[in-house]
Amino acid sequence: MKPWDTVVIVGVGLVGGSIGLGLRVKKLARRGIGLAPRASSLHAAQTSCCATDTPLMLELSAAEADLIVVCTPVGRIVDDVRRAAAVARPGTLVTDAGSTKGSIVAELDGTLPAGVTFVGSHPLAGSEKNGPTAAVRDLFVGRTVVVTPTERKPPKAVRTIEAFWKQLGARTVRMSADEHDAALAATSHVPHVVASARAGSTPADVLHLTAGGWLDTTRIAAADGPLWVQILRDNRRHVTAALDQVEKSLRAFRAAINNGDEQALEQLLEVGKQRRTAATKKR
Amino acid sequence: MKPWDTVVIVGVGLVGGSIGLGLRVKKLARRGIGLAPRASSLHAAQTSCCATDTPLMLELSAAEADLIVVCTPVGRIVDDVRRAAAVARPGTLVTDAGSTKGSIVAELDGTLPAGVTFVGSHPLAGSEKNGPTAAVRDLFVGRTVVVTPTERKPPKAVRTIEAFWKQLGARTVRMSADEHDAALAATSHVPHVVASARAGSTPADVLHLTAGGWLDTTRIAAADGPLWVQILRDNRRHVTAALDQVEKSLRAFRAAINNGDEQALEQLLEVGKQRRTAATKKR
Repeated sequence: MKPWDTVVIVGVGLVGGSIGLGLRVKKLARRGIGLAPRASSLHAAQTSCCATDTPLMLELSAAEADLIVVCTPVGRIVDDVRRAAAVARPGTLVTDAGSTKGSIVAELDGTLPAGVTFVGSHPLAGSEKNGPTAAVRDLFVGRTVVVTPTERKPPKAVRTIEAFWKQLGARTVRMSADEHDAALAATSHVPHVVASARAGSTPADVLHLTAGGWLDTTRIAAADGPLWVQILRDNRRHVTAALDQVEKSLRAFRAAINNGDEQALEQLLEVGKQRRTAATKKR
Repeated sequence: MKPWDTVVIVGVGLVGGSIGLGLRVKKLARRGIGLAPRASSLHAAQTSCCATDTPLMLELSAAEADLIVVCTPVGRIVDDVRRAAAVARPGTLVTDAGSTKGSIVAELDGTLPAGVTFVGSHPLAGSEKNGPTAAVRDLFVGRTVVVTPTERKPPKAVRTIEAFWKQLGARTVRMSADEHDAALAATSHVPHVVASARAGSTPADVLHLTAGGWLDTTRIAAADGPLWVQILRDNRRHVTAALDQVEKSLRAFRAAINNGDEQALEQLLEVGKQRRTAATKKR
């Protein structure tokens, strides 16, 4: 695959910044233009070398792009894609990095100017850190990126978006936006809710008695709240369904503990252990 | 503080083995005798250098000890302390490393032979790994050990047990056994239950879509189930109370997500973030 000419990254936080760094380090694009809503973010992005070009208006830079990657918060992605697509040349590809896909893909499907193709993506890589200073060149290496085409998408465009993520070291998985949202509710969104609920319900006066287990299981609770409000709002249906499953399991644990039913308790712990072990082996 | 003459460690798994290694590396005891229920564990303990002496019957080695540290599973600690104390010389100190303290301390209080003093301990250090091969010399460095004396305990014995853990690099916190169990229900036991419930309720067919968040929040679910059955059984009252708090918080999250109440959702996430940040600063 030949290098990209101009890749425009809208939103140079952890994910966008890491895309910029990866492109630059691996010499995958002649130009990587990073756009950020705040001058301070852009300055940090330039300092950390993930943007090669000076800040430009989205509408100006998008017109020069052959690939536009929208890495803004979930609630802004549809608007940012529309703004970019409105001025993009025919043939330009657009993707995103949003943690939810259903509404974004549905709202954009069939509504962009002719010749501009949007294919949704979600790289399963991130951390509780934010901003371009948290960007790392190998964020996507060995990670999974879910790509969510619809039937309308030209197969070549889908393959090119998949190739883009593979260039950054990721493997790709293709599924529908709804399948993605159902799966990620269980593997990412509900874990976030539960981590936050657990951290928040730990009495403040015993926090000095936390150790590795508590800290690991609450790490993601340190993430940016407003970003997660958008994700949880957008994936409400699947998140509440997945929460139901966790609550059902917690009730089973509670009953086993309360009734002193050691056999049931051991069985419940064993299921958790098996799933955890299986997940590790699938990586 | 002068070195110990003979420290007998009953149960040379991760914790007991790490005590043996720590004593040996820092030359804190003339002899460290490790006892394990299975010959294979003892062999591993000897190979990993955490036991300096050949296996002996608990009853024989306890008679030579000036300190006995019982590191067996929670359900066995009371019996192992009684067996050791029955043959120990007057002046021998006994402690343990159990994750629960209420019933252990209550059952042993005032029931041991005259001159043998038991002071309960719980080092807040461990991992999802087991056995003497998982032992490390610095397991307790910078960690907290809760020491749970009762009013009957000679103050000097309590200070000596605290000094023992400090020799291994830990800091100590003194509280009642019941205070310990209430706190640890929230900081350790319920996190374990929730991690296991979450891992177990993740559908098997989406495990390949897990990433760092899911893996961190379920790490402890890989721990040994039977050990945790004993802990959860022993601390049933406080664990169910702490589970109630988590379930209450989850219901608040569920309502905020379901009602699209972004302000409530952001507030809930913020509380979790604050607790998480506060816990990190207290370390």
